[in-house]
Amino acid sequence: MSKTNPRIMPGFMELLPENQILFNNIIDTIRETYESFGFLPLDTPVLEYSDVLLAKAGGETEKQIYRFEKGDTDISLRFDLTVPLARFVSMHYNDLVFPFKRYQIGKVYRGERPQKGRFREFYQCDIDIIGENLSFINDAEILTIIYTLFKKLDFGKFTIKINNRKLLNGFFKGLGISDPSETIRIIDKLDKIGIEEVKKELKKISLNDDQINKISEFIKIQGTNEEIFDALTSLNIDNEIFKEGLEELKYVTEYLDKFKFDRDYYKIDLTIARGLDYYTGTVYETNLDEHPGIGSICSGGRYGGITKHYIEKEFDGIGISIGITRLFSVLLDLGIVKPKTKSLSKVLIVPFDESNISYSMSIAELLREKDIICEVYYEDKQFKKKLNYANRLEIPYVIIIGSDEEKDKKATIKNMETGEQNTVSFEEITNYIK
Amino acid sequence: MSKTNPRIMPGFMELLPENQILFNNIIDTIRETYESFGFLPLDTPVLEYSDVLLAKAGGETEKQIYRFEKGDTDISLRFDLTVPLARFVSMHYNDLVFPFKRYQIGKVYRGERPQKGRFREFYQCDIDIIGENLSFINDAEILTIIYTLFKKLDFGKFTIKINNRKLLNGFFKGLGISDPSETIRIIDKLDKIGIEEVKKELKKISLNDDQINKISEFIKIQGTNEEIFDALTSLNIDNEIFKEGLEELKYVTEYLDKFKFDRDYYKIDLTIARGLDYYTGTVYETNLDEHPGIGSICSGGRYGGITKHYIEKEFDGIGISIGITRLFSVLLDLGIVKPKTKSLSKVLIVPFDESNISYSMSIAELLREKDIICEVYYEDKQFKKKLNYANRLEIPYVIIIGSDEEKDKKATIKNMETGEQNTVSFEEITNYIK
Repeated sequence: MSKTNPRIMPGFMELLPENQILFNNIIDTIRETYESFGFLPLDTPVLEYSDVLLAKAGGETEKQIYRFEKGDTDISLRFDLTVPLARFVSMHYNDLVFPFKRYQIGKVYRGERPQKGRFREFYQCDIDIIGENLSFINDAEILTIIYTLFKKLDFGKFTIKINNRKLLNGFFKGLGISDPSETIRIIDKLDKIGIEEVKKELKKISLNDDQINKISEFIKIQGTNEEIFDALTSLNIDNEIFKEGLEELKYVTEYLDKFKFDRDYYKIDLTIARGLDYYTGTVYETNLDEHPGIGSICSGGRYGGITKHYIEKEFDGIGISIGITRLFSVLLDLGIVKPKTKSLSKVLIVPFDESNISYSMSIAELLREKDIICEVYYEDKQFKKKLNYANRLEIPYVIIIGSDEEKDKKATIKNMETGEQNTVSFEEITNYIK
Repeated sequence: MSKTNPRIMPGFMELLPENQILFNNIIDTIRETYESFGFLPLDTPVLEYSDVLLAKAGGETEKQIYRFEKGDTDISLRFDLTVPLARFVSMHYNDLVFPFKRYQIGKVYRGERPQKGRFREFYQCDIDIIGENLSFINDAEILTIIYTLFKKLDFGKFTIKINNRKLLNGFFKGLGISDPSETIRIIDKLDKIGIEEVKKELKKISLNDDQINKISEFIKIQGTNEEIFDALTSLNIDNEIFKEGLEELKYVTEYLDKFKFDRDYYKIDLTIARGLDYYTGTVYETNLDEHPGIGSICSGGRYGGITKHYIEKEFDGIGISIGITRLFSVLLDLGIVKPKTKSLSKVLIVPFDESNISYSMSIAELLREKDIICEVYYEDKQFKKKLNYANRLEIPYVIIIGSDEEKDKKATIKNMETGEQNTVSFEEITNYIK
């Protein structure tokens, strides 16, 4: 019989059990944290009508999409979780309670050219708050959620960078740059290409020296919150949007102080713009201090009009997204996360021979009642091979059941790490393991 | 601006939060139960190379597949979780410990003609044990897992029907029917079309009256395990495969007795064949006693050679699958499952005005530390509207924080169901809620 070569496509992550257990633990922590702040679950289809998914898309996004026809239907795979959320809110806003807080953890698809660290199928873990004229305190709450989550995940010291798009847009308008999107796109590359290259690129798009110097001065502003606010004020930008942005940024950071948010974990960074056009206020990026090369591990911000492609009614929102597949892959490569266990089982019950299986099974039941994950080894193998299963899976305890144990209603428990072995009564088993 | 009609494709399930919470609870119970028996997680890509996914497929399956080309790559969406498992084991058997027990809960895709109760995207919840010459005790263990799971899920009284494919194949071979697959396919329809129609169809495929009578006698066999075994023995079928099947069935049910498995929850049903060709031994179906119309809610069995399309090395396996999307949809329609809550939050903290927000936030932190899910209402609305958010989401407790509460380090807690209202100290809050 001719064989098909078993393989998966490049850019798709598939893990062996020990790494999958680790990955699931991370996903569980993300979900628990999102839920602890009252966010509600949503699970949208992976496949959608192309016209719905691409209602606002264009350019790069559209090229990367997995899109095909089946029968007469033009179908695409979702490329993010924000467009499906906008579509969902547009369909169901009458049944939702606002502010609508939802989380979604699911796979999204981008048919990018495969390269190291780029995934074509990856999990996004998103939260968004959707409403009308949402309080700016929500912007501070989102920071609290990022903080709480990455503290729990324990990937090392991180810094959340925040900025405000109005501040940026107003600043550029004040300089006489009417469409600042190209300028913002260039500044967004500052970390990667440095200030001199940024200046060159700004010159290429026909900015004059005065504009470039002011921009260069602006993006150099650093310091404490108060120093930054002072520097921004003394720029004397005569633009209402700039002033609004500054007020919003002040307000959000004031709330961070009120929430006793550790200032060591965030900083105002005026160069953060987030490439996407739709952000309208606060924007966030998050970096691991010791691994800046990873780039942002959690980004987002405040946006407007997400439903405008579908319905007349408009909503604004604030949200963040974690591309956990790439992050996990990098953290694993760097050894920042390591599999802790090859099995979920805490106990392997090994019947000496087949006559001991019923009693072994009753022990398994007893352990499961106490939420201790366990397995009975049923295969008819040599005793050594049975123990080998526990060894290879690094199951911490083995309970050995022979005719003596069964007769006396006891169990011999072996700690596989220390080698220590004890015989205890049936009733004592769960306490011993715990 | 022209609008795109927001909609999803037929055959795709998307739930409002209250139903999504309920659905997630069911998925969580399934996962916990699978894990409690030591099954390990696996998460394979949704997209695979078509030649890999379709290595063994054909006929109906192939027609239903979502398949497309991107660049030079012929891609398909997975239509089950068994083929990806076979491909995974073929790629990684050197890194796996056998018997390899894995669970996978994920979406699969079938481009069926949409009709009530048929889904094109649905979750399958699978467990499989993969190994070589797996002990038949595993067949009994799988029944224990189904039993444990559906007891927990509490969808009502259920019966697991079991049979053995060797018994069937041997019986038909003994009757001189060399390729029984067509005959088995017809018998599989017994529940739907009745015995007379089955007889007619058997006649159509050129079985003689003697064969049809023996088949009719065979599929009428019912009773206790012992009565069924006696009846089967007295059929005097002179076929080795039949005898093997009978022995396996006896052995598996003996273990069920040893495991003290309640006989009221399973029965031997000689008409259960499971359409798929690849089953080689024990087969299972599960029905809700009071809703036979739903059909089987959990099916599976023992199979051989799943890796044979990819590698020389062969493995056998035992597995079951639950198509939870369809089941959930039916149970919801019938009112067997009902949403219990519209929110995950147990508490909404309502600051009377903005000056009370910091203190409200510190209460939220306190509650979250005790694993009590809560939210603070940040929007600047009338007090009544704030309470309305809790009412509409049916959040059981509201904590009201005004200037008095803040000054005295207290909190006014309102039970939204009873209307009862009490003011307690900051320290007493979590105990009061618990």
